[in-house]
Amino acid sequence: MNFHILTLFPEMVLNGLNTSIIGRACEKGLLSIEAINIRDFTKDKHKKVDDYPYGGGAGMLMQAQPIYDAYLDVVSRIPTRQRPRVIYVTPQGSVFHQDMAKSLANEQDLIFLCGHYEGVDERVLEEIVTDYVSIGDYVLTGGELPAMVMIDAISRMVPGVLSNEDSGETESFHDHLLEYPQYSRPEEWHEKKVPEVLLSGHHANIEKWRLEKSIERTKERRPDLYEKYRKSLEENQ
Amino acid sequence: MNFHILTLFPEMVLNGLNTSIIGRACEKGLLSIEAINIRDFTKDKHKKVDDYPYGGGAGMLMQAQPIYDAYLDVVSRIPTRQRPRVIYVTPQGSVFHQDMAKSLANEQDLIFLCGHYEGVDERVLEEIVTDYVSIGDYVLTGGELPAMVMIDAISRMVPGVLSNEDSGETESFHDHLLEYPQYSRPEEWHEKKVPEVLLSGHHANIEKWRLEKSIERTKERRPDLYEKYRKSLEENQ
Repeated sequence: MNFHILTLFPEMVLNGLNTSIIGRACEKGLLSIEAINIRDFTKDKHKKVDDYPYGGGAGMLMQAQPIYDAYLDVVSRIPTRQRPRVIYVTPQGSVFHQDMAKSLANEQDLIFLCGHYEGVDERVLEEIVTDYVSIGDYVLTGGELPAMVMIDAISRMVPGVLSNEDSGETESFHDHLLEYPQYSRPEEWHEKKVPEVLLSGHHANIEKWRLEKSIERTKERRPDLYEKYRKSLEENQ
Repeated sequence: MNFHILTLFPEMVLNGLNTSIIGRACEKGLLSIEAINIRDFTKDKHKKVDDYPYGGGAGMLMQAQPIYDAYLDVVSRIPTRQRPRVIYVTPQGSVFHQDMAKSLANEQDLIFLCGHYEGVDERVLEEIVTDYVSIGDYVLTGGELPAMVMIDAISRMVPGVLSNEDSGETESFHDHLLEYPQYSRPEEWHEKKVPEVLLSGHHANIEKWRLEKSIERTKERRPDLYEKYRKSLEENQ
């Protein structure tokens, strides 16, 4: 799977995605990540990529031309005939979630467009963007961090990227339940002991305890998810 | 405002927060960001920071001791007598949103704990964490990217960090409406013209057009936000 990121901060993006798991997957050839500097494509002699918005208002807008030409450059290097999906990272989008990560992991090539300043000229968005996606209801200084977040979440879902060591069958959002508490050595730390059942070696009891804790925690911290869990139980009965 | 990030990947965090706006705010002394390498605090002779979970299961857990000692180190350097808030980045938390960013921007010091592997020993979380926060319903390979996202969103809300150039009064999530489309030079691009009203210089009309477009877009892309907007209009009548 190949990620192509259109950005004004290519180094930031590449450095931030260089962690153990993603870095290893790139080395193995399971993933490739390239950052394309939009500024390299401007036709402005001062290398400018932004200008004032028509109609007034604070801040500067990223202009259409450099983004469009950077996009054409990527597309010309993608062998498939199908037009790749282009994700524009914006608070004005559908909210990213785990199922979206799974489904995007099936793509061969994915292009991310990272905005900066006050936004991007609407016309180039209309021309190239296929998906408007937000990572949550908060405002950030640019699209780079959210693009990195999505690429991280999507990469984990590409077959072969997670080893068994990394993943485990139990995972957040499985059946709408949060994860149970976990404990590692030592058995006692700061006068807190590991719950006895976990030391018992009795697998059925351990499973039961963990499920109880997951339900308890979901109910307490995320009543909205608990509601979904309850409904799916009812439907399966 | 001082951010202290407990992490196994200090460079990744520092590189990723080095963008124009945040970097400038650090230079001006409005913000400081430090990354503390948890691995520097392990008492294990092989510098190990993780171990198997009690009760079985895939993956490794981060152990209590190195995290706790890294935390004590930060706290010892914070001059205030008040215990600082410690945010643990986890899908098992309340979902981060813009109001939370605004409220956290009032803190003097904020500590972020970034988990990795399959999680963190529950006992150290009980001991030091004050807030469990998630940036959305998706799973990531570690807590670094979400911590960077939160720090970016919080930093924008620290007085002085955003200049007028950067911000503008109109902003996403203002009154629960998404932003209207924006246009910059040239007036015509790819046979698409800038909407005439924006060239009219008639401010009242421009405002009206922008509000209409915001409402239209919110209705179409985020019916949940539109519902909130509608309700708040009713309440204000």
